[in-house]
This record gives sequence, structure tokens and C-alpha cells, in this order.
Amino acid sequence: MRPLVIGIAGGTGSGKTTLTRELISHFPTRVSVVYHDNYYKRNDHLTYDERAALNYDAPEAFDNDLMIAQLKELIKGKQIECPVYDYTVHNRSAQTLTIDPAPVIIVEGILIYCFSELCELFDIKIFVDTDADVRILRRVKRDVMERGRTLESVESQYLNTVKPMHELHVEPSKRQADIIVPEGGRNFVALDMLIKRVERHLAS
Amino acid sequence: MRPLVIGIAGGTGSGKTTLTRELISHFPTRVSVVYHDNYYKRNDHLTYDERAALNYDAPEAFDNDLMIAQLKELIKGKQIECPVYDYTVHNRSAQTLTIDPAPVIIVEGILIYCFSELCELFDIKIFVDTDADVRILRRVKRDVMERGRTLESVESQYLNTVKPMHELHVEPSKRQADIIVPEGGRNFVALDMLIKRVERHLAS
Repeated sequence: MRPLVIGIAGGTGSGKTTLTRELISHFPTRVSVVYHDNYYKRNDHLTYDERAALNYDAPEAFDNDLMIAQLKELIKGKQIECPVYDYTVHNRSAQTLTIDPAPVIIVEGILIYCFSELCELFDIKIFVDTDADVRILRRVKRDVMERGRTLESVESQYLNTVKPMHELHVEPSKRQADIIVPEGGRNFVALDMLIKRVERHLAS
Repeated sequence: MRPLVIGIAGGTGSGKTTLTRELISHFPTRVSVVYHDNYYKRNDHLTYDERAALNYDAPEAFDNDLMIAQLKELIKGKQIECPVYDYTVHNRSAQTLTIDPAPVIIVEGILIYCFSELCELFDIKIFVDTDADVRILRRVKRDVMERGRTLESVESQYLNTVKPMHELHVEPSKRQADIIVPEGGRNFVALDMLIKRVERHLAS
């Protein structure tokens, strides 16, 4: 049986990951997740400073050919070795993450609907839509409290790349979605509908 | 068993009715539909010209107390006598429409999410979201080709009340939705999810 492939997109802090986690917790052994973030391009030819200066919020930052090839393998029922991105060195790490095939595959990422070839692989395209002010508050909390970054660096990155790239790429890609979910994982009506859709797939 | 109450809102020409019809065609004997449009206020105290000059695109145009009272009866499993609005005289007609209780109740209307007391009765709040240019094209086609109105009268009503009321009331009410469905009844992924949600309710 072909797996059900669910895309979960939305801006930074929108609640994508909460929604993904809710689905995993409902179907712990039936879901595999592929994170677009792990497919940032390898940039061995650049220095650390050059790599740090790259725009990681643009579609060009990703190795989509690899992602699409691996996702197709996973859909065929094959195990993949997903790359792992190391944020401390701004480059792909030497490690890989083994992802097993599963009846439900979630692909999570901010920019996944910017690529038509990737979109074609999704059975359900969900966009988690949350106001920009709520999203930046969550990002500030996460980056400052959990990742030890300064408020100034979060603000500068947000205003210089995250926000303009959101407006240029993420917001327009919402048009590709089949379903727009306000407020992500805390939207229990939408979550319930999605769970019932997955249950139907698993029972078929 | 309490019926599943589904709200379907969205601007003029968004595809609400197509979505409602798709649901009815999938569950022909299990769905009753309540149209907000039938609950326009009775305006016996006004002349025809006064009634024709009213703003029918504002929340105040509706008799919500009656709608809420009747919807509560329907949810309790009781048959209701829904008013019928006569557009030719801009007033409630002498007729009523008998609506039987059903396991699934759809409430369709442009402005239904503007009323919190009404929102509380919905288990699932769907907002059909379609671009304004696509919506006005559909409305022009419907009003000119099916209802015999002039292009000038459609344009004038659209620009004078439909559009400003959409921006003032309909668009902000989207925030109340649980699920936003781009493009209504032609969105087969969203329709499929909704159908599976209803099937689950009917099987429970």
C-alpha cells in the first residue's frame, strides 16, 4: 500500500512541529517524519564565515533534488539515510539519520510548497497559519530561552531574512495548500479531522 | 446522539454552496441544511423602497435570535419550520420550510461566524477561502446569467455593500474558523477529509 504523504508547512513559530508531534503521538509506530531542514545544502567549499552569512530562509538553501529522491524511495517502501544538518558549523554533518518506511509519512518544513515537484508527492498539503506577531514571540522565546541566543541576534535575523523571505516565498506558497489550519497543534478540531483521515488510511 | 453541526462560511462566490452540495450528495439522507439567508429579518413596517435600500450584507440584517433558537431545536432532534425569504419583495414570505433533524446539520452562510452564540453551536467551523477576483467573476456570472440582473446593478451592489461588508465582517470572521478550505467544493483533498470525518461520526 502506498503510504499517505502529508506535507506540513507554515512560517517560523506557526505550530507546524506541535501538529507533527500530535500526529506522531496518536500513531507512534505508523508515522515517519522527514524534516526539510535536514536537507540544507552541503557547503564544504565555503569558509565558516561565508557559510554563516548565507540566507537560510530562501528556497535555494535546500538540496531539493536529494530530498525528492529520498522521499520517492521512502514512498516506495525503502529505508533512507537522511542527511543531518549541523547548525553549529552551518554545514551538513557526517552523520545520517535512518528513516524507515511507514504507512504515513509526514514532510515538515517552512518552504516545502515552494517546489512543485515536491508538492506532487503529497497527498495532503497542510499549511499552519498563525499571525506573524504570535509567530515571532514564539521564535524569540525558543531562540533566547532554549537556544541561548541574544534578543538582538534574533531580531536582526528575523528582520533581515526570516520576515522578507516569509513574505516573498512562504506566504505565496500557502496557495498550494489543500487545507489551511489556523494555530497548528492547538487547533483540536482540525487535528481531530486529520487524525480521522489518517485512521481511515490505516484501516484501508 | 447529538448531530454533528458543521458551519460553512466564506465570501460571496467562494464555493460554499458547492461544498455543501458535495456533502449532501455523499450523505443524501443524513444531512439537513440550514441557510442563514433564510433568516433575513422580517421588515413589514417598511415600504418596498425602504426595504430595497437596506444593507443586506451586514450582520444586523439577520434575525439571529430566531436562527439560534431554531438551530438549538434541530440539534435537540426536533423538526423546525424555517422561515423563507422572498427576494422579490425584500421580505420574509408567508411560507416556511420544514427541516427535519438529521445526524449531520450544515449551517451555510456568509456571516455566520460573526455571531459568537452561533459559533458555539458548531462542532466544525469551515471557511471557504477564495480570491476576491474569482469570487466576483462567479457572482457576476450567477447574477447576470441566472438571475437576469444587469452588470451595472451587480457592480454597484458589489462595490457599495458586498465588498466593504466583506472586508469589515467576513474576512475578520475567518479567524473563528477551525479549517480554512481554499477554493471550496473543487478542493477534493479537503472534501475527502471532511467526508471521512462525517463517515466517522455516522459510524459512531
